[in-house]
Amino acid sequence: MSTIKPIDDRGASAEVRAVFDDIKRTRQVDDVNNFWKYLAHDPATLKRTWASVKEIMTPGALDALTKELIYVAVSVSNGCGYCIASHTAAARKAGMSDAMFGELMAVVGMANETNRLANGYRVPIDPAFE
Amino acid sequence: MSTIKPIDDRGASAEVRAVFDDIKRTRQVDDVNNFWKYLAHDPATLKRTWASVKEIMTPGALDALTKELIYVAVSVSNGCGYCIASHTAAARKAGMSDAMFGELMAVVGMANETNRLANGYRVPIDPAFE
Amino acid sequence: MSTIKPIDDRGASAEVRAVFDDIKRTRQVDDVNNFWKYLAHDPATLKRTWASVKEIMTPGALDALTKELIYVAVSVSNGCGYCIASHTAAARKAGMSDAMFGELMAVVGMANETNRLANGYRVPIDPAFE
Amino acid sequence: MSTIKPIDDRGASAEVRAVFDDIKRTRQVDDVNNFWKYLAHDPATLKRTWASVKEIMTPGALDALTKELIYVAVSVSNGCGYCIASHTAAARKAGMSDAMFGELMAVVGMANETNRLANGYRVPIDPAFE
Amino acid sequence: MSTIKPIDDRGASAEVRAVFDDIKRTRQVDDVNNFWKYLAHDPATLKRTWASVKEIMTPGALDALTKELIYVAVSVSNGCGYCIASHTAAARKAGMSDAMFGELMAVVGMANETNRLANGYRVPIDPAFE
Amino acid sequence: MSTIKPIDDRGASAEVRAVFDDIKRTRQVDDVNNFWKYLAHDPATLKRTWASVKEIMTPGALDALTKELIYVAVSVSNGCGYCIASHTAAARKAGMSDAMFGELMAVVGMANETNRLANGYRVPIDPAFE
Repeated sequence: MSTIKPIDDRGASAEVRAVFDDIKRTRQVDDVNNFWKYLAHDPATLKRTWASVKEIMTPGALDALTKELIYVAVSVSNGCGYCIASHTAAARKAGMSDAMFGELMAVVGMANETNRLANGYRVPIDPAFE
Repeated sequence: MSTIKPIDDRGASAEVRAVFDDIKRTRQVDDVNNFWKYLAHDPATLKRTWASVKEIMTPGALDALTKELIYVAVSVSNGCGYCIASHTAAARKAGMSDAMFGELMAVVGMANETNRLANGYRVPIDPAFE
Repeated sequence: MSTIKPIDDRGASAEVRAVFDDIKRTRQVDDVNNFWKYLAHDPATLKRTWASVKEIMTPGALDALTKELIYVAVSVSNGCGYCIASHTAAARKAGMSDAMFGELMAVVGMANETNRLANGYRVPIDPAFE
Repeated sequence: MSTIKPIDDRGASAEVRAVFDDIKRTRQVDDVNNFWKYLAHDPATLKRTWASVKEIMTPGALDALTKELIYVAVSVSNGCGYCIASHTAAARKAGMSDAMFGELMAVVGMANETNRLANGYRVPIDPAFE
Repeated sequence: MSTIKPIDDRGASAEVRAVFDDIKRTRQVDDVNNFWKYLAHDPATLKRTWASVKEIMTPGALDALTKELIYVAVSVSNGCGYCIASHTAAARKAGMSDAMFGELMAVVGMANETNRLANGYRVPIDPAFE
Repeated sequence: MSTIKPIDDRGASAEVRAVFDDIKRTRQVDDVNNFWKYLAHDPATLKRTWASVKEIMTPGALDALTKELIYVAVSVSNGCGYCIASHTAAARKAGMSDAMFGELMAVVGMANETNRLANGYRVPIDPAFE
């Protein structure tokens, strides 16, 4: 197997280019990230994933920054290098300060620690939380 | 082995009771959660964990609600039943509405999905994110 | 689908019973744990898993207690309820004291925390560790 | 610590070389992958792991391709870079087309998403599944 | 916080009922699983998730059974109790035999093992897999 | 976003330098690892994390080597590249032999495998372990 290569504007089908264009317009960027250039190998997944991300990440009850902080928290817990890099950048763009980043990391670290303490001590759920 | 039993106020040493009292005062609650009653078997871990949680969860650059949302996001990704239950309750107490919970879950789900798409497609980090 | 039921001595084929008997002899117990009674649905996996566990958990460069502590550490990190319960019991049997359990949990919690701090801060590996 | 170096045919003991030879014969390849060259530092683990892999990956009720797809699905969920690369290659060799890869990734992504939605909403198991 | 309750046909809005009806029609079942009854608290997530699952799980380059096996593999690796139960049932319905289930578990177990051996031995990716 | 840069002695505030000095003194090393140089961006997290690590990793009921083995086991299970590298080095320094490393990996691999077999077969906890 040769590794998958990214698909850029020139190599893209009309279907893929339509998604790329919508990403650029929505995010007001000149080019799409590698993530989308790789997903482009499967236009159905590209379209569905972009439509879902667009719907989910639009500010609603939670603002754009909070959503990006949550995205980083999950990516850090899962150890996804690509997603940590790209969503940390997105969180910065959405207004994450150095101090916010520090506190985000502290909470993520603590949650990962206490998750395991709760597992290991086999703590039963308090009736109040049921 | 018999399962570890929770330690409550009556069974607690002075050292443990001091931590319990600080938790109650800080959180303005009548009793501490099971998590602390189980950690009480190891007073050093109880003290250190509470001191860390107290320092980390105090509002700073991020407010209390945002910190609880992040805590839930990590606990859901890790599948820690106890922590999902207790921190969802804490997030509600800190102001999480039904709509916020729904959006939190949507972001957590999407992040877990795209983390794996990035892994599977072996997407290299964009130079802009390095 | 009806849930898989455990297979006990009476329901076991000769092939399965031979494994059960070896487990009982090796561990000097009267009955095998549920884990083996469920794996018995696939005799090939039962045999291979038991042969591997037996080989791996035999004291060698690491003693039996240390191996059980490691088993608990992994099971707690993965959140496997069954394995946490059974291997905590096995560790107790191999000599784990309350104090050891407390320190084990503390290390497991801390490792899970610093793993994520390293991920989130994207810390590059020191040349000395390469 | 200096990093572990791979052991190749020349550096291998007779015991290790016997395993290497069986891998080459079974897979009809000229050389073994890095995975085996590193495991060779522990001949007992090398032998046991190869024997297990050989037994498990042999076509049975599931064919070779299906087994490799499952291997990729697990490796992607766990974020194991080495295993993603090597088992994606193995799946290609076993007949995975581009379209199959795309659908595999889509299912893996969706499963990782819905796993967390089920966790977060604390969905109880339907009686029909018990 | 009171725990989220499932929403059934009677409590459902027209929007939710439309999704429930499509699930029943597509899967030819009389009632939807708890998963959907809980997601119904967030109609946007319910609709999007069902649309995605429907699109992804439709037989294509991979058949329905293979897709369910992959779903189970991911859910078992993540330790999602609900998803293990529901997708094992779905796999049975799609034709998974006892022997297939046994082999699926064997591959999932082995992949989880070798993923960690590759991590721990820090095995570099073979040039052939790049 | 530009990637976070490490903070070394020259760039460190008095507060950060005090922590660096304590790390060097305690570990009898000339320089601190990258981990601490990155955490230094958040002095509160740096101080708290070092204080916790120092307290937890001090020999007690478990000796220094056993604690490092546990740290490696967790890091390998989580796939944290940085932590695997740094704690394998620390374990070597604390006395881990090649044979111990081999057995550690074998136990970690097996635990990760059986964790999933227990999940997949949905094995209920034996009454004796409750």
